[in-house]
Amino acid sequence: MNAAQPMTQAMQRLNGLDLTALVGTVEAVRNDPTLGRFEFRARNRWIDGGENRSTIRDFYGAGREDDSRAQAFEFTNGEPPVLLGANEGANPVEYLLHALAGCVTTTTVLHAAARGIRIRRLATELVGTLDVQGLLGLDESVSPGYREIRIRMDIDADCSDAELDDLLGFAQRHSPVCTTVCRPVPVTIERVT
Amino acid sequence: MNAAQPMTQAMQRLNGLDLTALVGTVEAVRNDPTLGRFEFRARNRWIDGGENRSTIRDFYGAGREDDSRAQAFEFTNGEPPVLLGANEGANPVEYLLHALAGCVTTTTVLHAAARGIRIRRLATELVGTLDVQGLLGLDESVSPGYREIRIRMDIDADCSDAELDDLLGFAQRHSPVCTTVCRPVPVTIERVT
Repeated sequence: MNAAQPMTQAMQRLNGLDLTALVGTVEAVRNDPTLGRFEFRARNRWIDGGENRSTIRDFYGAGREDDSRAQAFEFTNGEPPVLLGANEGANPVEYLLHALAGCVTTTTVLHAAARGIRIRRLATELVGTLDVQGLLGLDESVSPGYREIRIRMDIDADCSDAELDDLLGFAQRHSPVCTTVCRPVPVTIERVT
Repeated sequence: MNAAQPMTQAMQRLNGLDLTALVGTVEAVRNDPTLGRFEFRARNRWIDGGENRSTIRDFYGAGREDDSRAQAFEFTNGEPPVLLGANEGANPVEYLLHALAGCVTTTTVLHAAARGIRIRRLATELVGTLDVQGLLGLDESVSPGYREIRIRMDIDADCSDAELDDLLGFAQRHSPVCTTVCRPVPVTIERVT
């Protein structure tokens, strides 16, 4: 029993995640799927030109309004001079790459923990290509959005290459941001007064 | 001539944008469509659990590598306690809402300026719904991504309601982030060593 104790403690966290909490979350949602419903929110205010600012704090999930954040997060969108701004912040398409990188990473780390795989290192480089003829409305045959996004992932984990490839494929298919980008998601704009 | 001078100066900027630069950009891309090709980049490093950090600085666009940013932007993804984190930052799906809010706003402001419409106020509230049964892999019929994203826009401009609705529809169809979300965009993950 004494010999097993350190191992049990070590197994309670993997990849920085509390395995007891992870299993508890999975079981709770499995038993009551309505707990899986989340609603995330952002409020944004135009400043001037290509500068605008979001505040993000509250959300609904796991059956209740979250109250864990003492303060709102604030993020500023800007544009570089070549896109008529003054680098007031990263621009929106760059923030999307940050969101995608983070989501693929967290989904990988989460499912690695669930599979008992320890991640030692995980870093990504993302490249997204687009053509501003679309944004500018110069050619309606050119999509304004990203044409493609390529992720190069440097990952080291205590499993075989085959297990790693299976994990990465699973993470790609189950990442909320990756899925939002890969599949069509309806966006509606309602003008309010 | 003297009477016209203040008007000319006032017309040179609209909605915080330099109209001469705006027209110059549009004409340059129209004359040489290869200038419209942009490549945006992000580098992300896993910290622990649901925490990871991106640095964003360089990009390619308008025919050259950009060198306008003295420093990189840094953003931290985190997760709230209910999603096994400690609110180290907003989470990736929230950053995506920020990106979408900013892109719809900037696209609206840009095309308003091109149409000679002055925006007096523009604020948005975004709500995105998703089901974490998808992320957790509990139900393969549930998409891990956003099911839908609703944008409520409070906008005041010096034009008619019909012109405003036309502007908003155009902005929605030409916003790079909105188009990336609304349409399927291929994402590839390549493991490097």
